[in-house]
Amino acid sequence: MYDLIIIGTGASGLAAAVYAGRYKMKTLVIGKEFGGETSTAWIISNYPGLPEIDGYELMTKMRDQAKSNGAEVIEGEVTKIEKQGHCISVFAGDTEYQSKTLILALGTERRKLGLPNEKDLVGKGVHYCVTCDGPLYTNKTIAIIGGGDASVKGANLAGVYAKKVYLITREKELRAEPINYDQMKKLGDKVEVIFETQIKEIVPKNTGMGLEKIVLDTNGKTGDLTIDGLFVEIGAIPNVELAKSIGVELDDRGYIKVDNFMQTNIDGVFAAGDTTNHFGAFKQDITAAATGAMAATSAFKDLGVHGGEVCEVHAKPIIKEHAQA
Amino acid sequence: MYDLIIIGTGASGLAAAVYAGRYKMKTLVIGKEFGGETSTAWIISNYPGLPEIDGYELMTKMRDQAKSNGAEVIEGEVTKIEKQGHCISVFAGDTEYQSKTLILALGTERRKLGLPNEKDLVGKGVHYCVTCDGPLYTNKTIAIIGGGDASVKGANLAGVYAKKVYLITREKELRAEPINYDQMKKLGDKVEVIFETQIKEIVPKNTGMGLEKIVLDTNGKTGDLTIDGLFVEIGAIPNVELAKSIGVELDDRGYIKVDNFMQTNIDGVFAAGDTTNHFGAFKQDITAAATGAMAATSAFKDLGVHGGEVCEVHAKPIIKEHAQA
Repeated sequence: MYDLIIIGTGASGLAAAVYAGRYKMKTLVIGKEFGGETSTAWIISNYPGLPEIDGYELMTKMRDQAKSNGAEVIEGEVTKIEKQGHCISVFAGDTEYQSKTLILALGTERRKLGLPNEKDLVGKGVHYCVTCDGPLYTNKTIAIIGGGDASVKGANLAGVYAKKVYLITREKELRAEPINYDQMKKLGDKVEVIFETQIKEIVPKNTGMGLEKIVLDTNGKTGDLTIDGLFVEIGAIPNVELAKSIGVELDDRGYIKVDNFMQTNIDGVFAAGDTTNHFGAFKQDITAAATGAMAATSAFKDLGVHGGEVCEVHAKPIIKEHAQA
Repeated sequence: MYDLIIIGTGASGLAAAVYAGRYKMKTLVIGKEFGGETSTAWIISNYPGLPEIDGYELMTKMRDQAKSNGAEVIEGEVTKIEKQGHCISVFAGDTEYQSKTLILALGTERRKLGLPNEKDLVGKGVHYCVTCDGPLYTNKTIAIIGGGDASVKGANLAGVYAKKVYLITREKELRAEPINYDQMKKLGDKVEVIFETQIKEIVPKNTGMGLEKIVLDTNGKTGDLTIDGLFVEIGAIPNVELAKSIGVELDDRGYIKVDNFMQTNIDGVFAAGDTTNHFGAFKQDITAAATGAMAATSAFKDLGVHGGEVCEVHAKPIIKEHAQA
């Protein structure tokens, strides 16, 4: 029986565990892919206090800190959650874990282009976040794929670093907030929008680091575009299926709805990180960590109130040992 | 002429500068006491990603990161702000700095007891934050001064670590949220409330580290209490005078009112860190850094919209060199 189960081993989940461990809560952190999106990042240089750190290393540091504070961190895919009163059951494989409080820190899934070598080139020419990786392309040429507000905001920020920015959309026009569109127009020739165009191929340099070019299709006409880096800004899907299964309310963009204390509409259930929209589109390690810490603090308060209530024991409580992450 | 001036060199101000520098905004950070409250902290062990770090060192790391991203960081006491349209003037000493956007990151002033050796013992037996320093007193005896909600929440958290917690209040009863009061009652004998009592003296150990005892006065009767550590939880005053002078709206607790993007009611003016009440009473380095990063991002967006507008030049623009912090 845990005081707190955190689902998700990214920045928000692990930061929550750092705090929960300090509060001496018996805490389990369980996640499918260790380190979440952060661990797939190359070098992170915008985490205040850690000027240059590999994403995987940052997550390892947070995990070790959480573990030294007493939290258990394991790998596992959670397939089901059940909640009866203040008793929460979390199922992973054929194991059931019980807890009094729950933090959902499941992040988002960035929409991918689905091109053959896209995955291999992540961090090596293909990126999904201009705020994170834009500075890598100072005085270089980049392309951004996407026609929504995120892509236009990405172009505005990329315009700060890059020599030239191509914004490539399948549509005939951009769908952006006027304020962001106006800002883009001020960048003049630096940003060139290519309409009604799809990307067909990503061609890396022979070295495997950085791009040679991309191949585009404009209404059936194929052409090459020489660029140094590609940013894919076609949206992200918050991982909210488990949340929905126990009645957690979503906001109008499909993210988990939380108040400033990371409380969801369900008593004892909190959420943190990118799966919430707390700071809007600004989804960073530092904001994930802060909301994780907040969620753990709220869970601690909740535990103080409901901690004494006894969980109804399930018919078959199967608790097994799991490999340590 | 700066794109952004940040007032305050604590965690929120410096994290804002890390991000603003990355956005290539011409940024000045100015603060009276380098590192704010954090730099007076002893060892910080709850900043996710940095398991054990001296507060001053954490602030130095953030400052160096901000500077390497291009921000200027200087020491100086801001005495006046003026705002005309999108032109903000910040006065420190006899120098005027002009900027297009402004972040107020001025933190809070913790209320002190006002006892003679209190200041010398900060971090060495005298503390102002149980969340931050509570774990230092695992299995030890502590006293908390204060009778409000913060002191009761402090006692609840201290109860996790300490062997014994004395809660000392001048009043005849505690003023706490019922939820927190109930949680405290569950701790039983571990927390002992001493009513109608004031602290008269703090007596340190001969070594200068840790306390020997405190001297109390209960309705005129003096007595000693042997404790290892003292936590002062008698409130904090947000530093909002400069904000008020340009019409920034406060919330009902007297903190700067911001939305989730750290925007105040004044165009081009943002706030971050402890001087806001964004995460309620949960005021930590990680939350300060996150709100600072958010504020810088909002300022960057604002600059994109209003950046081209020209400031009216003042009669005597006196810009001087300042010593680097």
